[in-house]
Amino acid sequence: MITLSLIGIGTGNPQHLTLEAVEALNTQDLILIPNKGVGKDDLAGLRRTICERVIRGAGPKIVEFDLPTRDEATRDYRQRVDDWHDAIARIWWNNIQAHLPKGGTVGFLVWGDPSLYDSTMRIAERLKPLADLSVQIIPGITSIQALTAGHAIPLNEINGPVVITTGRQIRDNGWPAGADTVVVMLDGACSFQSLAPQGVQIWWSGFAGMPEEITVSGPLTDVGQKIIETRAQARADHGWIMDIYLMRRSNGT
Amino acid sequence: MITLSLIGIGTGNPQHLTLEAVEALNTQDLILIPNKGVGKDDLAGLRRTICERVIRGAGPKIVEFDLPTRDEATRDYRQRVDDWHDAIARIWWNNIQAHLPKGGTVGFLVWGDPSLYDSTMRIAERLKPLADLSVQIIPGITSIQALTAGHAIPLNEINGPVVITTGRQIRDNGWPAGADTVVVMLDGACSFQSLAPQGVQIWWSGFAGMPEEITVSGPLTDVGQKIIETRAQARADHGWIMDIYLMRRSNGT
Repeated sequence: MITLSLIGIGTGNPQHLTLEAVEALNTQDLILIPNKGVGKDDLAGLRRTICERVIRGAGPKIVEFDLPTRDEATRDYRQRVDDWHDAIARIWWNNIQAHLPKGGTVGFLVWGDPSLYDSTMRIAERLKPLADLSVQIIPGITSIQALTAGHAIPLNEINGPVVITTGRQIRDNGWPAGADTVVVMLDGACSFQSLAPQGVQIWWSGFAGMPEEITVSGPLTDVGQKIIETRAQARADHGWIMDIYLMRRSNGT
Repeated sequence: MITLSLIGIGTGNPQHLTLEAVEALNTQDLILIPNKGVGKDDLAGLRRTICERVIRGAGPKIVEFDLPTRDEATRDYRQRVDDWHDAIARIWWNNIQAHLPKGGTVGFLVWGDPSLYDSTMRIAERLKPLADLSVQIIPGITSIQALTAGHAIPLNEINGPVVITTGRQIRDNGWPAGADTVVVMLDGACSFQSLAPQGVQIWWSGFAGMPEEITVSGPLTDVGQKIIETRAQARADHGWIMDIYLMRRSNGT
């Protein structure tokens, strides 16, 4: 019997860990931490730091593994992602067999919350046919909450809907139909540039929730270029960047 | 100088408190807790329980106040909400003047996260003209995260957008344009009944994240009636209910 715990750890501020996450980190038999390779090493480092900070005593066995890379030769996006998830699932399974031959509990530290633009739950599904397996989800603070807290703004307008979407969607499909408030994640290309900026307010955060947090906000016509430059500079300085932004059309309240 | 801390406390599972929220609850001079009147007393009780559980030593002064009711004679919805927020802000201000005549720190325990369908941030804004005031937002686990964790499902499909909306929006405007995944909050009327149920999957939770959590999921054609009945029964048993649901159209992945 194997229990996988997918533990939401927030977005880099160890104080954003929940009491439940702290407890879960302390009570696993094994914790698997991915190394994302050059440039993203900070993230594995942050996961290690979080473990060191909250785990009392000897704690679980912590094993790092190298994340495979996506095969860019596979043209279809969904197929490429599916293959990559298969490869990660195989590595998980090899590690679980090596370190927990009699079964036990395995924890994964998931950036933000396991439900939001994260693959961990889909990878865990792939292990279900291989073992008597249960999956436990431990929610965590998302970068959306770090964004709104950092800017001290509500996510929604009164009774208003909110669209959460990706940079790719914005580039392919433009401003979401019927939306006044749009949150954009996974955007490596400042995709707001593909929109008509008039009447749009933007709140942008780099490294939301982390000590390095940078915020820029204002009318998109005024601050769009500043965000592009700030993002490029921060990325050059850190070797990588995580960013997120919220846009509102000013016809709202 | 007054600092208001709006402290997200999650949705009723004290283990969902973040380390930051625990620290904030311990370091305020004053905590104001609303009594929502008959039927919702459990919520004030839960807030008190959370304070008792995590506050070490004497801790802050805790003051309860009666929430005013919305004036249903005011026809316009926005005006009614605005007037109500004004009234609450006056009560906050009276309490702050009475208990912190020389200034200090005031904490508010906010259900879920202060950014999501919550009035606390808007009420806090009303005090800014009255005092030298700063507002600090402490994110918390939302009922959306409690919903997806309880059902162990991702919020989004791969690269897919998500619409967060209200029961009123669903009743007035139907299925949001272009959306495959829709989360509905603040729905006192099982508003999914106004939609064509064919091809829609639903994941419903009552008291998401609380010990009393109830979950129902399946094709909307099959489980819609069960949700209506389960909700009515749970509401009758508890005197009140908080619920939330996610719907996906099956043309997604």
